[in-house]
Amino acid sequence: MSKDLRDRLFRELDALVIVDPHTHINPLAPASKTLADILGYHYYTELAHSAGMPKARIEAPGLEPKEKVRRLVERLAPLDNTIQYSWFVELAQAFFGFKDDRVTPDNWEALYDAAEAKMKGPTWADDVLKQSRLSAVFLTNDFDDPLEGFDTKTYVPCLRTDDLVFHLWKPEVRLRLDKATGSSVTSAATLKQAIGQRFQHFTRKGARACAISLPPSFAPESPELSPTALSKILSRGADASDDERRSLSHFVFWTLAEYCVEYKLPFDLMIGVNRQVYPAGVYQGQDLYDSRVSLIQYKELFNSFPQVTFPISVLASVTNQELASYSWICPNVVTNGHWWYSNTPTFIEHDLAARLEAVPRTKQIGYYSDMYKLEFALPKFAMFKRILAKVLAERYCIDRGWSEDRALALGTQVLRDNTEQVFGAADGPAEPVGRSQGFAG
Amino acid sequence: MSKDLRDRLFRELDALVIVDPHTHINPLAPASKTLADILGYHYYTELAHSAGMPKARIEAPGLEPKEKVRRLVERLAPLDNTIQYSWFVELAQAFFGFKDDRVTPDNWEALYDAAEAKMKGPTWADDVLKQSRLSAVFLTNDFDDPLEGFDTKTYVPCLRTDDLVFHLWKPEVRLRLDKATGSSVTSAATLKQAIGQRFQHFTRKGARACAISLPPSFAPESPELSPTALSKILSRGADASDDERRSLSHFVFWTLAEYCVEYKLPFDLMIGVNRQVYPAGVYQGQDLYDSRVSLIQYKELFNSFPQVTFPISVLASVTNQELASYSWICPNVVTNGHWWYSNTPTFIEHDLAARLEAVPRTKQIGYYSDMYKLEFALPKFAMFKRILAKVLAERYCIDRGWSEDRALALGTQVLRDNTEQVFGAADGPAEPVGRSQGFAG
Amino acid sequence: MSKDLRDRLFRELDALVIVDPHTHINPLAPASKTLADILGYHYYTELAHSAGMPKARIEAPGLEPKEKVRRLVERLAPLDNTIQYSWFVELAQAFFGFKDDRVTPDNWEALYDAAEAKMKGPTWADDVLKQSRLSAVFLTNDFDDPLEGFDTKTYVPCLRTDDLVFHLWKPEVRLRLDKATGSSVTSAATLKQAIGQRFQHFTRKGARACAISLPPSFAPESPELSPTALSKILSRGADASDDERRSLSHFVFWTLAEYCVEYKLPFDLMIGVNRQVYPAGVYQGQDLYDSRVSLIQYKELFNSFPQVTFPISVLASVTNQELASYSWICPNVVTNGHWWYSNTPTFIEHDLAARLEAVPRTKQIGYYSDMYKLEFALPKFAMFKRILAKVLAERYCIDRGWSEDRALALGTQVLRDNTEQVFGAADGPAEPVGRSQGFAG
Repeated sequence: MSKDLRDRLFRELDALVIVDPHTHINPLAPASKTLADILGYHYYTELAHSAGMPKARIEAPGLEPKEKVRRLVERLAPLDNTIQYSWFVELAQAFFGFKDDRVTPDNWEALYDAAEAKMKGPTWADDVLKQSRLSAVFLTNDFDDPLEGFDTKTYVPCLRTDDLVFHLWKPEVRLRLDKATGSSVTSAATLKQAIGQRFQHFTRKGARACAISLPPSFAPESPELSPTALSKILSRGADASDDERRSLSHFVFWTLAEYCVEYKLPFDLMIGVNRQVYPAGVYQGQDLYDSRVSLIQYKELFNSFPQVTFPISVLASVTNQELASYSWICPNVVTNGHWWYSNTPTFIEHDLAARLEAVPRTKQIGYYSDMYKLEFALPKFAMFKRILAKVLAERYCIDRGWSEDRALALGTQVLRDNTEQVFGAADGPAEPVGRSQGFAG
Repeated sequence: MSKDLRDRLFRELDALVIVDPHTHINPLAPASKTLADILGYHYYTELAHSAGMPKARIEAPGLEPKEKVRRLVERLAPLDNTIQYSWFVELAQAFFGFKDDRVTPDNWEALYDAAEAKMKGPTWADDVLKQSRLSAVFLTNDFDDPLEGFDTKTYVPCLRTDDLVFHLWKPEVRLRLDKATGSSVTSAATLKQAIGQRFQHFTRKGARACAISLPPSFAPESPELSPTALSKILSRGADASDDERRSLSHFVFWTLAEYCVEYKLPFDLMIGVNRQVYPAGVYQGQDLYDSRVSLIQYKELFNSFPQVTFPISVLASVTNQELASYSWICPNVVTNGHWWYSNTPTFIEHDLAARLEAVPRTKQIGYYSDMYKLEFALPKFAMFKRILAKVLAERYCIDRGWSEDRALALGTQVLRDNTEQVFGAADGPAEPVGRSQGFAG
Repeated sequence: MSKDLRDRLFRELDALVIVDPHTHINPLAPASKTLADILGYHYYTELAHSAGMPKARIEAPGLEPKEKVRRLVERLAPLDNTIQYSWFVELAQAFFGFKDDRVTPDNWEALYDAAEAKMKGPTWADDVLKQSRLSAVFLTNDFDDPLEGFDTKTYVPCLRTDDLVFHLWKPEVRLRLDKATGSSVTSAATLKQAIGQRFQHFTRKGARACAISLPPSFAPESPELSPTALSKILSRGADASDDERRSLSHFVFWTLAEYCVEYKLPFDLMIGVNRQVYPAGVYQGQDLYDSRVSLIQYKELFNSFPQVTFPISVLASVTNQELASYSWICPNVVTNGHWWYSNTPTFIEHDLAARLEAVPRTKQIGYYSDMYKLEFALPKFAMFKRILAKVLAERYCIDRGWSEDRALALGTQVLRDNTEQVFGAADGPAEPVGRSQGFAG
């Protein structure tokens, strides 16, 4: 009975047309061209590598897509328990008529060919969006992205700022900034101007968020640098000391928050990743983390910017309770999806249930796919919707006696409605989330 | 079937008459006078504020209770998913005949009037106690509380010591201590005497616990201050340095533990809160935490005071396993309830199950309400009892084949019996919990 | 239905003949002689002590086994909720025909006598192995163990290295090393030789792992000691400073990892225990932990030794997500069992589910008993198999639509097959786990 209830709730949730509020889609090539784009996703390469596949098997230069897929399929058996593997099978079934429950050396080639044929269709990306019931996906754009050549209503720009905050001391990043802004950054003033110019560029193109991923050690501080000190750091470039780089990071980060006020952009914080922990890993399979991080590191930031909405993702499930608590107390903190190493069912179920019970329903962005290719939204969101249906069925309908309709309305809000509420609709920026809720204004 | 089993266990547990071992009840005004006392509970004001309600809407001076409730009800819709909201609806149904499942601008006024009428009854507080099946509630008394004017068998004094440990450097706190004790604290000796006098006062009035809430950074140490050094700190008052204040805190904390030995009082430790993290929050809605805390910080304390029972609450669920483990090993460590940010169903379920499986059944205080007004015990304990019934049904009856009777006996012990066992009955102090258990003496 | 499914899966898993990959069995006295060996297990003595039994009741010198059991049984009632108690009852029922569900002052003596009679049987240890469906158990041998007098195919040696890493500064440990190797350790070179000699001795005797337990503060570093510095530390012995001891620890630890390469031994790391936190505890009931530990402390180690498989146990469930993530990324990291304070059902269920979903199926050692006496494998593994069946039923068959056969194959792999895969079969060392997986070589 509980399973029937879950299935009914899932079907209703699955019928909604929604926006995916965080992806790494390239809007000029949003969908896959072959199955190599699917199986090249780091989840498969890193798990296959972890299970024994030499990196060189798939990172050899000039490797043909079909050969790459053949080599990966040979290595998939040890992963067929993982939820990531299930995404692959589910999308193969949904998009390419795959009938089996595992992809093996015996059945992969027909799937490859079927996929390639479909992917060649002139409307493939739109077909995927439609079949996935996605009306739009948010992007992750470099600060110097011209944002040209695509429909920004469907592919919504977001300003990704890791490079500005953590790598501006590198000459090549400074060069990119100078080039993008047509200016020369040499001082606090010109740096602020250049960053402001990027906000102007992005918001004119319809950007809906500023975003960054942050290491566990990061604790934003209001900068106390004199203009002279900052100019000196900028002039030192790659010779800047660790302390100077850190000062520059804090200055840029704080400046971003200030511009989020001015341009009314939410500031997505993705907290907790350590880069390059395992440098021998495959491409994009080298980052890990230290789960000893606390949102108290963001105390000054949250207090200093009440006008900015901070949708927050945490990398480790052990930080989820803090996220729920800070969202429960601070009007400008919003829970955002289930990120990366926490994007597996057991963690999602635990973390989602804890949020639903304690955070205002208006302040929870249920899920984003984080995908690089459009085909992944369908299975990833399906996973989330099944868990959402499970939590609603078990913890609301059964444990708390809610009607199915009431549970469904809650699910709809966190899955669909809050994205527009928090990030704004296509026709204008959002009000800060802490401003517009309740029965009355 | 599992749901039927849960319901049966819940009904049995719900019929027990119990003691609430930690509240913030004012014994001179224990029950609410209007719904403003109910909705003024920080859970509602902080969640409404977090969801967008300006603080000034409800903290305006001179705001009439009915207007305050009207304003809050306008802002409740975004919270109606939370477990805290469900407490409100459940108590409205139980005490005031409320029939709906949500309180809205359309139905709140009739509820307000019905509640006010009931609350005016001359025996309202006793009626609430009776309907809630509470025989007594523990208080949280300031160290200078005269403890006069109420029945200390029903409203059991507890000595709250945050001010003594963390704020004694403030002239106003010293003044309160001098006034309460009729002495003048100027040295280690007079400070000890004054604190001892408070223990004598409290225990004569039937106090059953000494209690304190502690920040994550606190790590008690046996003090090594010379009397001269302490006198100097006391004489410096508000001019004392951070280090001196910390030394004073450690001295007072250790002294409290020593008096807990002498006066046979359990020492409730509530570990993990950071005060004033979000100063722009509403009243009592400004505290948060850093979940990076460990009970190993209390190693010296637990070892130094084997005669003192330490009922321990932890603020974050990630500390619960340590709490279970330390209680499993140390005779003087007892698990105590589900505190504040961990007092929501998903965390309670996980934390409770982990404790039940690994901590002696005699060393678990199941729950306390932490309430400020009596009406909240009913829905808060009901929430806990439902979860307790769920854990007993699923993890004992189903997973481990226990009979319902056996499960019920375990539930009864952690919900009711251990409170008296740990904190003592009305007629005398408890034996340290590590002294009197088992078949033989 | 779900319970039927769980029961069917359990019965299938329970029928498998398996290897226990980590125990503290003494191969010269592997089984119990009386119930005092069973109830003397630290789980019972420490829980009884925690619930109020004075330590002297059972640690009195010369206490007869039967009297010790009588005294412990008197103190068991407060523990009868714990999972540890259930192990005792389950083994009493399985091995000694015990019919009740609790052991009390009224029924213990008959059980004692029945057990003693059985245990006297000349083939008792083999009987237990057979009834427990164990083909072999791994040992935990001191570095100077002669490894003589037992069948190393059934009782598989493992080199335990805590003494070498953390206590080599003690004269008595140095003496043991000198004696065992017939050498005199005075320098980096002779120390390396002596350790190498131990690896040779152990692997000749069929050892399948090097193992160590580590405190939360430990973070291995490639040593930078000059030979002279090391000689100096060795010469200082017990006079060595804390820093010098730490340097010595790092040197020995790194040397062990180097020999694990040479001798193709997996290096079991058991991460997170603080020794002697509660010195007043009973024998083996004094250790606790600080859950603030991260696998990032092992970053350099994992990167430096790609050829070594590291089966990793974590003491606290809050570290389990890191373990799952590091195993998902790093070919040489393998999840290993559910250790000590995390070896209770709620933690196992959460941790196991998280691993199964995200770690390649070939890289998970499901469980080890950690037992001191053979009788405990049966109830401990039974507990694990029930949870494994529950997770497979609920999260694979129901949530993800897997067939029972497919779920059973996954369960069989983590419960049985991976042990041989990771630690090698009786006839030779294992290939590093990251080398030999997948359809093709």
